[in-house]
Amino acid sequence: MYVVIVYDVAVERVNKVKKFLRRHLHWVQNSVFEGEVTLAEFERIKAGLLDLIDEDEDSVVIYKLRSMPKREVLGMEKNPLEDII
Amino acid sequence: MYVVIVYDVAVERVNKVKKFLRRHLHWVQNSVFEGEVTLAEFERIKAGLLDLIDEDEDSVVIYKLRSMPKREVLGMEKNPLEDII
Repeated sequence: MYVVIVYDVAVERVNKVKKFLRRHLHWVQNSVFEGEVTLAEFERIKAGLLDLIDEDEDSVVIYKLRSMPKREVLGMEKNPLEDII
Repeated sequence: MYVVIVYDVAVERVNKVKKFLRRHLHWVQNSVFEGEVTLAEFERIKAGLLDLIDEDEDSVVIYKLRSMPKREVLGMEKNPLEDII
């Protein structure tokens, strides 16, 4: 499964969320990560995020795709995917 | 085509980008929009974004999907999709 994860998390928790996601996925830009994951990894990521966020204040949206989607970049690419492929 | 657009734009341009995307797509959360678009709309959105951003500093990533992807939300949903469907 390929996931794109975007988050809107209060400033006091945002570094922990970023650090956690960095261990599992590719950082795309400000508050966006993506990557190929197994179902087990996906469940670990969800559980880890639920530990870190405040569910009443923060929001994480996970797009679940079959494979890496087509993408276009306007302007600069902050962290080119080619670096990890 | 269904697009998810994430942007990382300098603060002096971010409001214009947000306002522009709001006219075309559904706001999901901080710096994320999504929605179904025709090819013509997609081209207009791209052209509009290129007019607004500084290509040397800003970054916009457009994920191009066939249809609305599966999604999971952790925590709160900032702007539920059901409002527009």
